[in-house]
Amino acid sequence: MNNINYNSVLIIGMGLIGSSIARAINEKKIANKIYGLDNNKITIKKTKNLQIVEDIYENLDDISFQFDLIFICVPLSSYKNIFKKLNNFIKEPTLITDVGSTKVSVINDYKSLIDNNKISFLPAHPIAGLEKSGPEHGFAKLFYNRYCIITPIYSDEKIIEAISNIWKSFGMTVEIMDAVRHDRVLAMTSHIPQLIAYSVVGTATELETQMKDEVIKYSAAGFRDFTRLAGSDPIMWRDIYQKNKEAVLEMLDRFSEDLLTYQKAIRNNDLKFLEEKFSKSKDIRKIIEEIGQAGTFDPTEKN
Amino acid sequence: MNNINYNSVLIIGMGLIGSSIARAINEKKIANKIYGLDNNKITIKKTKNLQIVEDIYENLDDISFQFDLIFICVPLSSYKNIFKKLNNFIKEPTLITDVGSTKVSVINDYKSLIDNNKISFLPAHPIAGLEKSGPEHGFAKLFYNRYCIITPIYSDEKIIEAISNIWKSFGMTVEIMDAVRHDRVLAMTSHIPQLIAYSVVGTATELETQMKDEVIKYSAAGFRDFTRLAGSDPIMWRDIYQKNKEAVLEMLDRFSEDLLTYQKAIRNNDLKFLEEKFSKSKDIRKIIEEIGQAGTFDPTEKN
Repeated sequence: MNNINYNSVLIIGMGLIGSSIARAINEKKIANKIYGLDNNKITIKKTKNLQIVEDIYENLDDISFQFDLIFICVPLSSYKNIFKKLNNFIKEPTLITDVGSTKVSVINDYKSLIDNNKISFLPAHPIAGLEKSGPEHGFAKLFYNRYCIITPIYSDEKIIEAISNIWKSFGMTVEIMDAVRHDRVLAMTSHIPQLIAYSVVGTATELETQMKDEVIKYSAAGFRDFTRLAGSDPIMWRDIYQKNKEAVLEMLDRFSEDLLTYQKAIRNNDLKFLEEKFSKSKDIRKIIEEIGQAGTFDPTEKN
Repeated sequence: MNNINYNSVLIIGMGLIGSSIARAINEKKIANKIYGLDNNKITIKKTKNLQIVEDIYENLDDISFQFDLIFICVPLSSYKNIFKKLNNFIKEPTLITDVGSTKVSVINDYKSLIDNNKISFLPAHPIAGLEKSGPEHGFAKLFYNRYCIITPIYSDEKIIEAISNIWKSFGMTVEIMDAVRHDRVLAMTSHIPQLIAYSVVGTATELETQMKDEVIKYSAAGFRDFTRLAGSDPIMWRDIYQKNKEAVLEMLDRFSEDLLTYQKAIRNNDLKFLEEKFSKSKDIRKIIEEIGQAGTFDPTEKN
């Protein structure tokens, strides 16, 4: 894959993911020049200080040249605006990919706003992240050994191959999936765990003050794992629940039903039920560790 | 604290916590000899191989000498049996502490079964753990920079000080709490997050096969954080829900009510509600990081 070479890359949205992409491109040397675009002045300043892009702009209109590769790394509610602008901006053949957490909404937005035949778009979702947001927290290895799901709109093998090779060069395994299926799977692996984490942390914030302080103080008992998820970007998540509403509500119903069976078992002292269920869950954890998708948790604090 | 010196320590239950205590005692050199007791033959073998104790026994009856300090590190359902045996076994003044995750049940078991005035017991709960179980996963630093909650039965300052000093020597901050309050706080910081993690993982296991395989494959999206909790010892947790039933059911009701407000907001596209709630949760995370109780998560895989 050493022969991938783009002349000029634009990353729209220089948050955690966008800045990690810039770093990965630099590390893998797959582009001559990387530019950033972000509408947040603090992010622009941080990105400049990090020296991970050639230059960073606030508006697409400020840019007088073209790109051969563009990454869209913005919250889902900004896609329509970005697509409209790109539709006017692009004059030369350009590959575009994105990192959006839902894919049906992205494809719908794309189809309704892009009629520029210079644009070749392959929707993608690199399954990689961290509870932190902002360019200062990005790092090239974020994508290493993780999956990237692509949901092609058109079956153009050349485009699929070209963009897949970019994600692969970051160390990702690329998998093709139908967009509707992607949104259902991610509802379960990502959107529901996140919502529940928010909800548990929310419940704790509404406890009386002394109790709340103690919950925070003794969070290392398990609660902190939920706050880790809840530490990520609120706007990003707000948009995900809007854009993947149906699948999220379906999976939430399933979860709530299951939780009631645990509640009933506790009330009825059904220890056998609890032990069996807990053992099954432990087995799932083992599989995730075996396939190398567990991450590494160190309960001590690094400085 | 270099002047703490016990002659002969017994650790009952050589799992993750018990074996970490053995390692911490060795590292801090606060005892001349450490012995283990465990009713599981595999654990006994593993412990012997680890060479972290002088010797390990299967039955208390096999031991012909006395101890000046005993740690109880067994599942809550084994306390009654252990207390009965200790009540007969102990002939010399002995300090006893424990690591049980609920404290009301432990104190009730103690009061109903111990009438031996050689025994001085201080219930304790070191808030430290890991999703792994078994002596091979223990390590001395597990307790470092974490809280240990003690719930004294009697206001004997000498005993409280002696046992507190042991936990402090491991790097812990000791806090005194009423046992009933402890059980309510821990229901929220530990027992509810754990139950919900089990439930989410359980929901995933009941999906149709292909979907389940994909949920596991793409678990790095957030789901894996829940499986991390769900990886811990099923028996330990089964016992916790039995012993802390009332507080768990109360907190579970609060959580379920809160989750419904999120569900309603998603259904009604109430983006403002979601954004506000998510931002508040992010603030809680910040506090936990600031007080150094967040642990360190590396999303990449080591090895």
